[in-house]
Amino acid sequence: MAEYFPGPGRNHLFVPGPTNIPERVMQAMSRQNEDHRSPAFPVFSKGLVEDTKRIFKSTKGTCFIIPTTGSGGWECALTNTLSPGDKILTYRLGQFSALWIDRMRRLNFQPDVVELQWGTGVDLQQFRLKLATDRTHLYKAVCVVHNETSTAVTNDIAGMRRVMDTLGHPALLLVDAVSSIGGLDFRMDEWGVDVALTGSQKALSMPCGLGIVCASPKAIEASKSAKSLRCFFDWADYLKSYKSGAWWPYTPAIQLLYGLRAALDMIFEEGLDNVIARHRRLGEATRLAVKAWGLKLCTTNPAWYSDTVTSVMVPPHVDSGKVVKLAWKKYNLSLGIGLGDLAGKAFRIGHIGHLNELQLLGALAGVELVLNEVGVQVPVGSGVVAAGSHLSKSTPLIVSRL
Amino acid sequence: MAEYFPGPGRNHLFVPGPTNIPERVMQAMSRQNEDHRSPAFPVFSKGLVEDTKRIFKSTKGTCFIIPTTGSGGWECALTNTLSPGDKILTYRLGQFSALWIDRMRRLNFQPDVVELQWGTGVDLQQFRLKLATDRTHLYKAVCVVHNETSTAVTNDIAGMRRVMDTLGHPALLLVDAVSSIGGLDFRMDEWGVDVALTGSQKALSMPCGLGIVCASPKAIEASKSAKSLRCFFDWADYLKSYKSGAWWPYTPAIQLLYGLRAALDMIFEEGLDNVIARHRRLGEATRLAVKAWGLKLCTTNPAWYSDTVTSVMVPPHVDSGKVVKLAWKKYNLSLGIGLGDLAGKAFRIGHIGHLNELQLLGALAGVELVLNEVGVQVPVGSGVVAAGSHLSKSTPLIVSRL
Amino acid sequence: MAEYFPGPGRNHLFVPGPTNIPERVMQAMSRQNEDHRSPAFPVFSKGLVEDTKRIFKSTKGTCFIIPTTGSGGWECALTNTLSPGDKILTYRLGQFSALWIDRMRRLNFQPDVVELQWGTGVDLQQFRLKLATDRTHLYKAVCVVHNETSTAVTNDIAGMRRVMDTLGHPALLLVDAVSSIGGLDFRMDEWGVDVALTGSQKALSMPCGLGIVCASPKAIEASKSAKSLRCFFDWADYLKSYKSGAWWPYTPAIQLLYGLRAALDMIFEEGLDNVIARHRRLGEATRLAVKAWGLKLCTTNPAWYSDTVTSVMVPPHVDSGKVVKLAWKKYNLSLGIGLGDLAGKAFRIGHIGHLNELQLLGALAGVELVLNEVGVQVPVGSGVVAAGSHLSKSTPLIVSRL
Amino acid sequence: MAEYFPGPGRNHLFVPGPTNIPERVMQAMSRQNEDHRSPAFPVFSKGLVEDTKRIFKSTKGTCFIIPTTGSGGWECALTNTLSPGDKILTYRLGQFSALWIDRMRRLNFQPDVVELQWGTGVDLQQFRLKLATDRTHLYKAVCVVHNETSTAVTNDIAGMRRVMDTLGHPALLLVDAVSSIGGLDFRMDEWGVDVALTGSQKALSMPCGLGIVCASPKAIEASKSAKSLRCFFDWADYLKSYKSGAWWPYTPAIQLLYGLRAALDMIFEEGLDNVIARHRRLGEATRLAVKAWGLKLCTTNPAWYSDTVTSVMVPPHVDSGKVVKLAWKKYNLSLGIGLGDLAGKAFRIGHIGHLNELQLLGALAGVELVLNEVGVQVPVGSGVVAAGSHLSKSTPLIVSRL
Repeated sequence: MAEYFPGPGRNHLFVPGPTNIPERVMQAMSRQNEDHRSPAFPVFSKGLVEDTKRIFKSTKGTCFIIPTTGSGGWECALTNTLSPGDKILTYRLGQFSALWIDRMRRLNFQPDVVELQWGTGVDLQQFRLKLATDRTHLYKAVCVVHNETSTAVTNDIAGMRRVMDTLGHPALLLVDAVSSIGGLDFRMDEWGVDVALTGSQKALSMPCGLGIVCASPKAIEASKSAKSLRCFFDWADYLKSYKSGAWWPYTPAIQLLYGLRAALDMIFEEGLDNVIARHRRLGEATRLAVKAWGLKLCTTNPAWYSDTVTSVMVPPHVDSGKVVKLAWKKYNLSLGIGLGDLAGKAFRIGHIGHLNELQLLGALAGVELVLNEVGVQVPVGSGVVAAGSHLSKSTPLIVSRL
Repeated sequence: MAEYFPGPGRNHLFVPGPTNIPERVMQAMSRQNEDHRSPAFPVFSKGLVEDTKRIFKSTKGTCFIIPTTGSGGWECALTNTLSPGDKILTYRLGQFSALWIDRMRRLNFQPDVVELQWGTGVDLQQFRLKLATDRTHLYKAVCVVHNETSTAVTNDIAGMRRVMDTLGHPALLLVDAVSSIGGLDFRMDEWGVDVALTGSQKALSMPCGLGIVCASPKAIEASKSAKSLRCFFDWADYLKSYKSGAWWPYTPAIQLLYGLRAALDMIFEEGLDNVIARHRRLGEATRLAVKAWGLKLCTTNPAWYSDTVTSVMVPPHVDSGKVVKLAWKKYNLSLGIGLGDLAGKAFRIGHIGHLNELQLLGALAGVELVLNEVGVQVPVGSGVVAAGSHLSKSTPLIVSRL
Repeated sequence: MAEYFPGPGRNHLFVPGPTNIPERVMQAMSRQNEDHRSPAFPVFSKGLVEDTKRIFKSTKGTCFIIPTTGSGGWECALTNTLSPGDKILTYRLGQFSALWIDRMRRLNFQPDVVELQWGTGVDLQQFRLKLATDRTHLYKAVCVVHNETSTAVTNDIAGMRRVMDTLGHPALLLVDAVSSIGGLDFRMDEWGVDVALTGSQKALSMPCGLGIVCASPKAIEASKSAKSLRCFFDWADYLKSYKSGAWWPYTPAIQLLYGLRAALDMIFEEGLDNVIARHRRLGEATRLAVKAWGLKLCTTNPAWYSDTVTSVMVPPHVDSGKVVKLAWKKYNLSLGIGLGDLAGKAFRIGHIGHLNELQLLGALAGVELVLNEVGVQVPVGSGVVAAGSHLSKSTPLIVSRL
Repeated sequence: MAEYFPGPGRNHLFVPGPTNIPERVMQAMSRQNEDHRSPAFPVFSKGLVEDTKRIFKSTKGTCFIIPTTGSGGWECALTNTLSPGDKILTYRLGQFSALWIDRMRRLNFQPDVVELQWGTGVDLQQFRLKLATDRTHLYKAVCVVHNETSTAVTNDIAGMRRVMDTLGHPALLLVDAVSSIGGLDFRMDEWGVDVALTGSQKALSMPCGLGIVCASPKAIEASKSAKSLRCFFDWADYLKSYKSGAWWPYTPAIQLLYGLRAALDMIFEEGLDNVIARHRRLGEATRLAVKAWGLKLCTTNPAWYSDTVTSVMVPPHVDSGKVVKLAWKKYNLSLGIGLGDLAGKAFRIGHIGHLNELQLLGALAGVELVLNEVGVQVPVGSGVVAAGSHLSKSTPLIVSRL
């Protein structure tokens, strides 16, 4: 095998994506190619494109399932709705919002960037003040990450929409929901989100390779006049194929689509709100563990706590990279490194996707050991006890096993 | 099962992509996600990016393995090397060249399109005359499909390079090699191709989802000054990640990369030139069958015969779509429909990728039956005999079984 | 890879078992182990054991799904119903009946063996005469193979039952249905079969590893007094576990059971009688090909023609082993060798399990080429034409694609 | 899906078999059938049969890889080496030794059964006294389970051999090593074991379906005169096929054999002694956890501690079945129930096969929670701390990641 020998036992995958793929999704994807132009494939495709909206809690939106990544999704959202030179109000609050802003600039938009301290989220009051200054509605879009994966900050999208409505601001609301959709509560229609996007390798627990973008009717309307160049990511090509019944403007990623079908079915069977509740439970348990260890969360305020990832600050005398490296080398535990400004200062525990209580407790037990082994003295067991006690109280019986 | 019931026995997949995936590639892809930021993944990635060049017969080029499709590859090739308004000399000789030209226009380039009769390829003499008129070197690129999948025409790329060299024309030579790389002889370095691109679901016999682009040093150099907007497809981001050792500018399609590794290993074990010879053998056999049936090839001249796909003209009184439909409905045989101008007039037999002699003979036997059943009277057995006789003479023993 | 390099393209598996596994069965089996003592597994097991009866066309029988092979099934059938020294009336008509007889002797039974010419089956008239001599009913069982895989002879089980009934002979009727159940018409209850057995790797198109035995109420009754030693194969242990709700007397072959579930579902969806008709169609096509080649079938009389395997005699100057070897070495075609008395004289084409028309035509095309290449001159194309013409007329549209 | 909905996240499989299958083994088994009579398969088979001896630490033995289970292995070991009426000295110390003894009786041997208190193992002193009484060597075999899975007792096989040698007793030493081989130290040749057997679904971490039996030269010799009836399990048939180069007396379980190949490769790459050390580490950690909880081990003496399974006694007021049921219903944790005399009194934690430290800590965290939830008050965290501290000290870095 030309392959790295992976160590005994299972890899404990606790990065905030890519996530653990359920067996059923793997089975669904272990399949031959087929002719996507056969009469069968459109039948399958139609149902899939339609059902994908449900994880966005949208009935009015239109989904585009694109062979790309979240980064491609960013580009897709921007270029389909905006024209070169358009002003965008946006926030830099971590590595991924920073990268998105970089894309905005390179794609010739004019992002007006509000710098936030990493670990904080959008302050609605300040957002209101900022937006109110834009009397002539120069901002064509407000772009925000729902869940900033590098700092574990979840922004209040519903609140931002309320501010925009209060001010009667017509800007589009574009949301990076990469590490949120399918894990955090997200309500496309109710919150008035215009474009939301995610990737297959996050809460959907699939392999990487699909960027999934959902557009509101208003966004679709905007795309008709948006002047940005786009081909591969052009909604118009997709919409034409939807209309013609071909469903795909180019050869789709067949296996990933069957994987998505299985992933959706599993989410619907568990119940989307149960899935969200499970993420909330695991997120809270993780934060309780961090507090029990006496360590600081990167996220400064409970209002912004993320239920899909926790970013943990290590004491100044320790390099957080050492935590991540030792976890991988000794315990086959994959943690997220500190990104950007947080490099060396924080590590991250992803608790997103197809995951349950004891998987998390095993990982937390591992983090405890590793912390002590690299010189961060935390009471061994304290995190597991804090997390476990919470889970013991909050975990329901598995519905199918009653 | 939320799935279309597929009929007894194996699907005979004879569209010119997606192609038959070998078991070994499927096994390699049936794997969990992993942390692509671990120390292990770059080691794997480096070898993979390096080895991918070999199927382009390139040692000087640089490969970009992108989570996209061939369409994305087109965009990638153009935007990285050209600036808005740049003139391109190109040929429309079928559906896929037509679509690429559409992309050129939409991306703000100025393609100077030579219209060829569908079924013919680039005439080197005319190419020479055309290019010679461009004394001031306004053409920044010559764009051509190596193998036009809709008409089964293979262009003479080496010959085009000779013309360009003879004239001392500095234009870049960009080649759509989607249905050729890994099936037809293709010599990136020797032929002086500047950008070549393919997709995973063609001769590589993988699932769809990867666009693979190879750039010459001259193309890389051109990318430094090319002013087209690009983010997702930007070589600069990839090159930066190669340099840093991260190897990927965003989360890569992990499973597809392991599939590519297995696909490359299989090609190298069989021997790339043996693979090419196998395609030649199957292509010739198919054309002999068509001739035995008394039907016309879409490709008008042997110089342009394609060894990965054959496009068969049906008599005017028959709709070629009926052939394709009945083959699928009765014999679980997937043939390519006639595309664009050839809709209703031609159908296509793909003989590309992980395929052998008896698979082809089974398909040809099926085509014979179907043709007769839809009213195209061809001597039953004639095609199988013609193809089989050729294969009997030309097929070597399987090396590993000597 | 510690593995034999398998040659380009798909292996054409035309031995009469192991057979081609459908993708859906492979997906179903690609799964983790689980606790077979959980509350979930018995629910699954109950339905499976019950549904397995349907492929035997039995409602009164009891199925035993055993981690073993067809050989184990033989032993299971005999030791559960007979006592040491019991007389058995049986027929040697090929390699597999010969092996079963060998087991009878080694297990201390007294088989009274009627020797048949290989290529012929049980003559009902002679069976009647033979059985009639047993006035005192010393024969405790009649043992017969339904489909002798080495000679391609299918016996008339219904006719044998009629003879037994006419004579009022109380012997048990034990039937080796290894290469028949799920491919040939088999009617356990209607024909009064007392024990029938098959293996997973035959018409069920699964991996090898399961022996499946179905017992009539009379056989179950007989097992209560049968004195043969048995443990691993003891029905009593299974019956106890059925009663207790544990369903398995020892750890079952979990993955194979899920594979069987999928295999049954596929058969039921296609329709068992449609599956049988498909085998009849493919069998007839194969025999027509052999006749077109001018070669002799091993099976001497149409009454005994087998629809799951065809045994083809080669001319005396050629070693049939060369046909098999060259097919494998050059065309990746796996044919059955001549077994026992037929070694060197015959080769076999299996047409059993998950298989369709064009797979068969591809294989027949290959056989034609190989025959000529080893010096058996047959008109190239003749077999494919004869088979194809029959299939063209007799093959229905795929139901799900209407 | 005709399938039980399995609950979110991964099943935590901590029964002492079936065990967790590594991805690489699953990949190796996800493969088509093939002709086991081709020239390729014997090459593969020879290496496999040879290499399997290494997990028995044997060079002189002969392995039989049989499509059966551990129960079949028992029968195979006995019937190949003994004759009806032969006396056997054996020990009943738990459920599995009890079942084996049941087989001995049903197979017409005469087991002289020493009853041990469940939770204890063979006392060498008493074994010596017992064996010494057999001056005329009526005992033809000593049969013992190496690791009694129901009570978590590991017997001292080397010590028993020493006693036999000291007394010059010629009995064969037959060892049930089902839950030991590949997990516990086992030295076939050094300890003078005559037959040892295991099953694929235990420490080898494969699906169930293979019984693997290793026979010493003395056992092979004994098989030549042993008069017990046997067919399916007959070594003579296997030995004949080894000699002929066919390697299998009937169709082998092809996929499981490729799985075994991968399982062996993984064990050899990790290093068999490293695998054993890992089991020792996990076993010790588990016992430390039980002690920290203040609960009693079923195993009464450290000399008999098992490193593949721990049997935990619950207080009299609690039904251990409730622990197992709640673990499964709430935490997707599969524990072993108390078997036989221990039903309701004990539950079992399997720590066998492809497993690592954090998987175990997650399970132990779950057990702590469940115990408290069913009314066994144990200090939450105590077990995880005790186990974790031990693991932190004793776990080496993963060799391939240094």
